[in-house]
Amino acid sequence: MDVMARGSRNLLDRRSELMARYRAFQARGIVIDMTRGKPGPEQLDLSLDMLTCVDEDSYRTSGGVDCRNYGGLDGIPESKKLFAEYLGVEPEEIIVGGNSSLNMMYDAVMRAMVHGVVGSPVPWGKLPRVRWLCPSPGYDRHFSVCEHFGIEMIPVEMGPDGPDMAQVERLVAEDEAIKGMWCVPKYSNPTGAVYSPEVVERLATMSAAADLRIFWDNAYAMHHLDGAAAPLENILTACKAAGHPHRVFVFGSTSKISFAGSGVALMGGSVENIELTKSQMSYQTIGPDKLNQLRHVRFFGDLAGIEAHMAKHAAILKPKFDAVLDVLDRELAGKNVATWSRPSGGYFISLDTLDGCARDVVAMSAEAGVRLTPAGATFPYKKDPRDRNIRIAPSLPSIEEIQAAMEVVAVCIQLVSIDRISMDAQ
Amino acid sequence: MDVMARGSRNLLDRRSELMARYRAFQARGIVIDMTRGKPGPEQLDLSLDMLTCVDEDSYRTSGGVDCRNYGGLDGIPESKKLFAEYLGVEPEEIIVGGNSSLNMMYDAVMRAMVHGVVGSPVPWGKLPRVRWLCPSPGYDRHFSVCEHFGIEMIPVEMGPDGPDMAQVERLVAEDEAIKGMWCVPKYSNPTGAVYSPEVVERLATMSAAADLRIFWDNAYAMHHLDGAAAPLENILTACKAAGHPHRVFVFGSTSKISFAGSGVALMGGSVENIELTKSQMSYQTIGPDKLNQLRHVRFFGDLAGIEAHMAKHAAILKPKFDAVLDVLDRELAGKNVATWSRPSGGYFISLDTLDGCARDVVAMSAEAGVRLTPAGATFPYKKDPRDRNIRIAPSLPSIEEIQAAMEVVAVCIQLVSIDRISMDAQ
Repeated sequence: MDVMARGSRNLLDRRSELMARYRAFQARGIVIDMTRGKPGPEQLDLSLDMLTCVDEDSYRTSGGVDCRNYGGLDGIPESKKLFAEYLGVEPEEIIVGGNSSLNMMYDAVMRAMVHGVVGSPVPWGKLPRVRWLCPSPGYDRHFSVCEHFGIEMIPVEMGPDGPDMAQVERLVAEDEAIKGMWCVPKYSNPTGAVYSPEVVERLATMSAAADLRIFWDNAYAMHHLDGAAAPLENILTACKAAGHPHRVFVFGSTSKISFAGSGVALMGGSVENIELTKSQMSYQTIGPDKLNQLRHVRFFGDLAGIEAHMAKHAAILKPKFDAVLDVLDRELAGKNVATWSRPSGGYFISLDTLDGCARDVVAMSAEAGVRLTPAGATFPYKKDPRDRNIRIAPSLPSIEEIQAAMEVVAVCIQLVSIDRISMDAQ
Repeated sequence: MDVMARGSRNLLDRRSELMARYRAFQARGIVIDMTRGKPGPEQLDLSLDMLTCVDEDSYRTSGGVDCRNYGGLDGIPESKKLFAEYLGVEPEEIIVGGNSSLNMMYDAVMRAMVHGVVGSPVPWGKLPRVRWLCPSPGYDRHFSVCEHFGIEMIPVEMGPDGPDMAQVERLVAEDEAIKGMWCVPKYSNPTGAVYSPEVVERLATMSAAADLRIFWDNAYAMHHLDGAAAPLENILTACKAAGHPHRVFVFGSTSKISFAGSGVALMGGSVENIELTKSQMSYQTIGPDKLNQLRHVRFFGDLAGIEAHMAKHAAILKPKFDAVLDVLDRELAGKNVATWSRPSGGYFISLDTLDGCARDVVAMSAEAGVRLTPAGATFPYKKDPRDRNIRIAPSLPSIEEIQAAMEVVAVCIQLVSIDRISMDAQ
């Protein structure tokens, strides 16, 4: 028996063992949902007092505004103050909105498509084409917004310090049709990357179309897992210093701070950007839910209150992330079938299989009761060119469920990899 | 002295008296805001228990859904059930959204502009022109949405039974570019008109472009002033019977039922309309604030609960409307300088001056401290062709304030009318 045949035998033996484990998981009838970055119930419990902290004696702002009534397009003064500090902007540079930052981003794209932007009143929708830079893997809902508006997406390689800036600079310098760019600059979805100071600086200073808008979705600004916050340069400050004050729209949300479905959404930018946005919004709504903004201000008090609250989230989330990493380390380390991120914040672990395996791993895991984010979802048009990226979302399930789920995923990765290698060898 | 000269002398005397009253009002330093249909604080107090009726023990739907978390694009099942009944549609024919029905209407226009509608996927924005029927006087924020999207507005005469249907039928039959129509079918803003069964029937059956959409803003569905509800035919039922099931989008809101800034917004329509809308909305948001929907369901219980609650609103509002009418009757009856509506519901009294006087009356009232809705606002492009319509919004001020404000308005109407008549005589 030669070396090749022996290797083959071992592989077959190994496959049988893994298949037995897989069948055993299937027999257990597991049902675990790891598709989305949903907070777990114990995280939501952290904010329970928010439900009743605005009551019949406390529905007014400190300035006396009755939050039950109409009005206040850009939010109540105290929420603008608190969340401006959170977002790293001035109170006149923020709009505090409703419960969905995705909706705020969608609307910002829509307004640009229909009306243009500051300094460039030509609606993007009137242009022959609109293109958008999409650091990938990235957030599927960002990409879906572009798809919905017929905006052509250009994937950009995502590294540990942010997007490949040489590629970004070349593309925006060459092509005036590039009007936007999605960025999740801190604990990026899904890789956990934090944009380096150099990347922020280059984004602010690069030569680009005057109406290019960077959509800076700082969704995880304070969502550390390890206590210490990763530093992130202030993009608005950098853009102002570079003479491009209107280049960036900054977004944020308390969906993963207070209640996922009942948080407040944030949009920041230059005074001109915010003023134009407000004048456009005035056609759309009379104003956001002020009572819910007041609940947030009452419950958190100040930025230190948010920080202290986020430490409680981290205490719940860290063991869940560790549970994922422990199983991956134990099952897959040294086997050359996968690599994965070790994020210091955010909501996801990014897992890369061998090329061409992700779709099969996700499908196979689903058949054993473990639902993962669809393979490809982290890329524009849902097409992962190497079919290798899987987004792991550990926040919702319990630690026991995570352990079981990740064992299923690890077994599936090995099975699919073996079949892929065998097939390649044929 | 001939008759003409004697008339002139009397008019001059009358003018002096009125001017003295006007100066006296100015000296009082009144500040009264009657610009918008904002509920008064005593109305908001009716719903105070809603603030705390969802607490740490009651944040789940009856089906067990955790309302604190993400999800539920079209609302929670119990709010869909309750508000479907309120809106006169089936639970699968409704979307219960966030705090602003204006936002829902704006978004519906936007989606049609960008993506087209059921049965007609050509985006309205790609058409050479889009026109819209605007029964006038009407709701200024409706007209502003059209203006914002560059939709050409065609005013249609508004009568006591609704819009002039002969005009509507002729226009939509002749012109395929007419894609939309605003309707406030019950206690219309500002005239208080209730659409007659014949008007509803003709709207449902008329020949029109296949992608015509009637925006049926039933904002005052249960907002009676006199106890008995004015009957209104169900437009969706009528459209279905006429073979045009997708012709109508029905809207509603609890802003003038619970809290003006923190209500829930409603959109109803054919199952196909709702399904398409939901599929488009899925790019925009993960879902509305479910906790606030739960608050509404808990607080009202059922439709009878809403009806009982609306009777309390009526008890507060009716004396305010009566105060307006009493002053107008006392000051202006029989003088041939103004006519006004006597609505049985809604939020406004519509006041028509002599042609060419409204703008001056509003300006003059403002200089005595009484802020009214800007003249012209109730017409497309803010242009009242006869400059005569003034919208009176009695809900926010106290009865004493209303009495003072309406005396100011009545004095201004007489003064401006005298000057107008004198000028015309020259």
